[in-house]
Amino acid sequence: MTTSSTLRVGIAGLGRMGRRHAENLARRVPGAKLVAACSPVAEEREWVARDLGVENAHADLADLLARKDVDAVFLVTPTSFHPEHIVQALKAGKHVFCEKPLALDLAECRRVEAEAAKHPKLKVMIGYGRRFDPSYSDAHAKVKAGEIGTPYLVRSQNLDMNDPSGFFVRFAPTSGGIFLDCSVHDIDLARWFLGFPKPVRVFAAGTIAIHEGLREHGDVDNGVAICEFEGGKLACFAASRTMAHGHETSTEVFGTRGRLAIGANPRLNRVDISDAHGVRNECTPTFYERFEEAFQRETFEFVQAIAEDRPPALTLHDATEATRIGIALRQSLTARKIVEL
Amino acid sequence: MTTSSTLRVGIAGLGRMGRRHAENLARRVPGAKLVAACSPVAEEREWVARDLGVENAHADLADLLARKDVDAVFLVTPTSFHPEHIVQALKAGKHVFCEKPLALDLAECRRVEAEAAKHPKLKVMIGYGRRFDPSYSDAHAKVKAGEIGTPYLVRSQNLDMNDPSGFFVRFAPTSGGIFLDCSVHDIDLARWFLGFPKPVRVFAAGTIAIHEGLREHGDVDNGVAICEFEGGKLACFAASRTMAHGHETSTEVFGTRGRLAIGANPRLNRVDISDAHGVRNECTPTFYERFEEAFQRETFEFVQAIAEDRPPALTLHDATEATRIGIALRQSLTARKIVEL
Amino acid sequence: MTTSSTLRVGIAGLGRMGRRHAENLARRVPGAKLVAACSPVAEEREWVARDLGVENAHADLADLLARKDVDAVFLVTPTSFHPEHIVQALKAGKHVFCEKPLALDLAECRRVEAEAAKHPKLKVMIGYGRRFDPSYSDAHAKVKAGEIGTPYLVRSQNLDMNDPSGFFVRFAPTSGGIFLDCSVHDIDLARWFLGFPKPVRVFAAGTIAIHEGLREHGDVDNGVAICEFEGGKLACFAASRTMAHGHETSTEVFGTRGRLAIGANPRLNRVDISDAHGVRNECTPTFYERFEEAFQRETFEFVQAIAEDRPPALTLHDATEATRIGIALRQSLTARKIVEL
Amino acid sequence: MTTSSTLRVGIAGLGRMGRRHAENLARRVPGAKLVAACSPVAEEREWVARDLGVENAHADLADLLARKDVDAVFLVTPTSFHPEHIVQALKAGKHVFCEKPLALDLAECRRVEAEAAKHPKLKVMIGYGRRFDPSYSDAHAKVKAGEIGTPYLVRSQNLDMNDPSGFFVRFAPTSGGIFLDCSVHDIDLARWFLGFPKPVRVFAAGTIAIHEGLREHGDVDNGVAICEFEGGKLACFAASRTMAHGHETSTEVFGTRGRLAIGANPRLNRVDISDAHGVRNECTPTFYERFEEAFQRETFEFVQAIAEDRPPALTLHDATEATRIGIALRQSLTARKIVEL
Repeated sequence: MTTSSTLRVGIAGLGRMGRRHAENLARRVPGAKLVAACSPVAEEREWVARDLGVENAHADLADLLARKDVDAVFLVTPTSFHPEHIVQALKAGKHVFCEKPLALDLAECRRVEAEAAKHPKLKVMIGYGRRFDPSYSDAHAKVKAGEIGTPYLVRSQNLDMNDPSGFFVRFAPTSGGIFLDCSVHDIDLARWFLGFPKPVRVFAAGTIAIHEGLREHGDVDNGVAICEFEGGKLACFAASRTMAHGHETSTEVFGTRGRLAIGANPRLNRVDISDAHGVRNECTPTFYERFEEAFQRETFEFVQAIAEDRPPALTLHDATEATRIGIALRQSLTARKIVEL
Repeated sequence: MTTSSTLRVGIAGLGRMGRRHAENLARRVPGAKLVAACSPVAEEREWVARDLGVENAHADLADLLARKDVDAVFLVTPTSFHPEHIVQALKAGKHVFCEKPLALDLAECRRVEAEAAKHPKLKVMIGYGRRFDPSYSDAHAKVKAGEIGTPYLVRSQNLDMNDPSGFFVRFAPTSGGIFLDCSVHDIDLARWFLGFPKPVRVFAAGTIAIHEGLREHGDVDNGVAICEFEGGKLACFAASRTMAHGHETSTEVFGTRGRLAIGANPRLNRVDISDAHGVRNECTPTFYERFEEAFQRETFEFVQAIAEDRPPALTLHDATEATRIGIALRQSLTARKIVEL
Repeated sequence: MTTSSTLRVGIAGLGRMGRRHAENLARRVPGAKLVAACSPVAEEREWVARDLGVENAHADLADLLARKDVDAVFLVTPTSFHPEHIVQALKAGKHVFCEKPLALDLAECRRVEAEAAKHPKLKVMIGYGRRFDPSYSDAHAKVKAGEIGTPYLVRSQNLDMNDPSGFFVRFAPTSGGIFLDCSVHDIDLARWFLGFPKPVRVFAAGTIAIHEGLREHGDVDNGVAICEFEGGKLACFAASRTMAHGHETSTEVFGTRGRLAIGANPRLNRVDISDAHGVRNECTPTFYERFEEAFQRETFEFVQAIAEDRPPALTLHDATEATRIGIALRQSLTARKIVEL
Repeated sequence: MTTSSTLRVGIAGLGRMGRRHAENLARRVPGAKLVAACSPVAEEREWVARDLGVENAHADLADLLARKDVDAVFLVTPTSFHPEHIVQALKAGKHVFCEKPLALDLAECRRVEAEAAKHPKLKVMIGYGRRFDPSYSDAHAKVKAGEIGTPYLVRSQNLDMNDPSGFFVRFAPTSGGIFLDCSVHDIDLARWFLGFPKPVRVFAAGTIAIHEGLREHGDVDNGVAICEFEGGKLACFAASRTMAHGHETSTEVFGTRGRLAIGANPRLNRVDISDAHGVRNECTPTFYERFEEAFQRETFEFVQAIAEDRPPALTLHDATEATRIGIALRQSLTARKIVEL
């Protein structure tokens, strides 16, 4: 139902992730209504009209932002446009949800933060959706309740199934590298579980296990890193683009009285198969199957924050910090040195 | 959005399960719109108006059935009313979704089947939701694809967490007993996985582990049973109301080339806790947390079957058969003999 | 080392299981020394001399039993000889360990019990080794300590990997059928966990999933059964000869305050493989890999019982009871009726 | 049995680990016989005579080494004595098995290597027992067989249960620090799985989560580290002395076609408990319960290497390399810099 409190949302970008956000907004997020969309691709505009019943599909973002019947925009545009698009949307008076990462450059992050500061009534949230996954939420609640004592170490890894087509190689020039593309999620999780300590220094290393084409871009297909925070807090990260079994995001939170592990087995569902291969379970092929519910819940959080006029659980500053640490990891990898923060 | 193809649904019964169906219909099922409700309880009528925005809330089922703007009804009324309510709804020209069990008496089941036969255009579906759980769906697809060869044995159990308040005892006079209340789900799963073979005979036994009050009702709090089908197919059932760890529905399907197990560990989520108790995971407390998604998907199946004018995946006859076998199990338990079917 | 308290053992039967017992006795069981052996097969006598350094290898059991330097005998002869061999050994003044089953016939069991009663100083133990597996021992200790409250239901299954060569079919005429061959272990476990209640009645059913050749012997390759005991205790059994993944012996003990599961995943070791098949573990191919340690520990128990002049943990009567219930299961299967005990 | 090929072993050191090695040598290792022992503690000498029947128990190592009936010695003396004791034993013409670590100082390692080079007929093996654990052996065989393609990354952690008595603090001055005491095992495993690549550089960090007393010794109770090898091979290590659930040694080997995980759940046995805490398993309390079989198998390997006059699977050089990398980790931790190797 649409009531006076329903948030009217316009979406910009209808690629793979854009479509998923559009479907969630149209069908699965209470309190939100998808009223307009924007894409330079005619086919995508037709899809959103035909499949989701969204009649207002524009080719230009400016037209979307000019609409008076749009309260908030979802930016699912290419990363390099994120900062500029967020600034434009804020200037147009819209609340903004933007897919991660905020930017690949710290100055850009800060430009967005500065613009947001000028619009204290508008909410801005970046899509670090892991936190909204029910399992991560539950683990965080347990940590907060003191169930594992004081948390002091987070080990978190983001492992993607190998894509033999080499998409990662083509994407390498604009991805920001494996740490900014993948480990930012783990960085955000580590900060969140450890209570947002200040990072002190990082060390990273990497290797190319399969995709030699990454070498010319200074990127790797497997990376590992250590981040030290103030107060003796530690985080270890691993990222891979070459797994055989599926997408696996797993995190361990070590506390003085116990440890929580989230996602240790990336099982697809509750089925166990006993056959000539032994006892086994199938795995989530990509991050999307793993985090489908998280995407809905992060959107709902954004809608609720606006409805209740409070800051979203995940702040713009969180996104900047994840980017800042991610950039330091990349520097450590390429310069082969410890990077102080 | 509401389009001409949107199914307009009225719901009768707003108790625990009724509210959940109402919320799903109002918010989470594409293609359906909750337009009216019916409950003898004023408070429940207020709830559906206030929380779900359903303005047409009636005290009498007759008023709900008289509405021209209702295409289908959801019956979440007490079991003893199911047959009569389904018949009334069919006579009023409505599609019917009714919570399980269809009835506690075979004659009643057949009366409903007979009435439904007079309304070939109307769809009737009984809520054996297990089949719509993503894990059970996946397992069934694997069986159908021949991945475990020919299935010949199903072991399935429905174990509920002990309720120290003794709700089961008070519910005993009208529940139909543990096999009709709990094992009907397992019976339906066994038939489904084994290809709907004809049952031949059953044997059941049970015990009272905790709730002595069940004895005067001829019921038990733990039951086990064996069912033989034509062609040498077998099923074993177990049902319990006295578990300590939560609700566990688990099923094993044995085939000539492998075995599938669904729900072996009723884990609540993807969190593993390592502490002084060892390595552990929390469990789904009730069937609802376990099958939340199944309830949405079964509703969607009902809506789709109507939209596509085809029989629902789960037929009225399936419900009759589950009831028939369930009654035989109860007879075997109380008469302490093998019951031929 | 061999001291005055070392038990001097002679072994009869050097087939597959016989060799394993011989190796354990020769190398891995403190307090025992393998001093003599007996086999009608020359090659086996040569093996025991060459590989285990046992010089006294006889062709006839009588010669083994006549030796003064043998305190105890291990009988690993064909099942049909068990009763007669035990009786002969007792008459020769030897302690006796005999592989399971004690006999396929109740009268034979009782004949052995009667003979044993005439030799109160001699220990007789039948090889129901499951109880000596460290996991089963641990579970039993937990049950005894009241950790799961009062146990009331045991579900236990003995599932063997399919042998495409059809060994089971050739073995069928002398195996006693699937329940006497396989389920006796589960029967013994159920009695042990439930506190040795008196059996009341049983019901069994079975099917031939693969090995049609069993039909002429009245046997099946998959069987299921329910056994009721006095005091409302229950047991469910399953046995299979057609698994694809390996040997799996798994048991669940239900108590009023918790449930224990032993062997739910028959993992070969602590390795998990993540590859194109998902996340998986390999399984124990046969009962021997699964229960290797149990075989050593049961032998050690036998040796200790003699050293301490006390009854072995597993009595001859236990073996008779397992056989008695196993025979009832077979009768129930073939006569298609409930069998009272 | 004792034959001409039986290895006659003397053991030096009968503390906690010494007793375990002594028991294995006396009872569980085919081809070995424990003929003499040495300990400065009278009570320990009495124990070995009384419980293991070893009559030749000396107070001084020199007396043990002087015995002509001793072919090989097991050194389970304090770490600081290892190098000198190995050298003395070699000079006395004995094969040597020495508990890990070889030494805490690289010069000492090399002194031992130099002495060993003078005695090419004598075998020297250091007790990096992880490799002989059946699960690690199986994983290594799979890697060697190419089952996961080319291995490129090892993540390995050695986590000990917290000892509230603070033993680690008192042990800190002589332990060499957490990396030399614990991570040497993981270092050896990483080298082994990756094919013994040359280490290039390391980075380590640590924190004190509980045991503040470690600070004055420059040690930590939790450490993490990254090691880069030639050819782009990588290893990540973690070590902890503050776990709540037990001892956990877990290792992941990432290859281009799959990943193996060893010991992901440090389960004590095959029992799963379902109770008010959820579904759980108990864990191995210390490394000893976890690696009991590995200790026997490493001893057997040592005995076999001597019998077959071939180098043991684990060379002295392996021990030196593990120490060298461990020292570099400690330097990195305390100097807070990258250490080149």
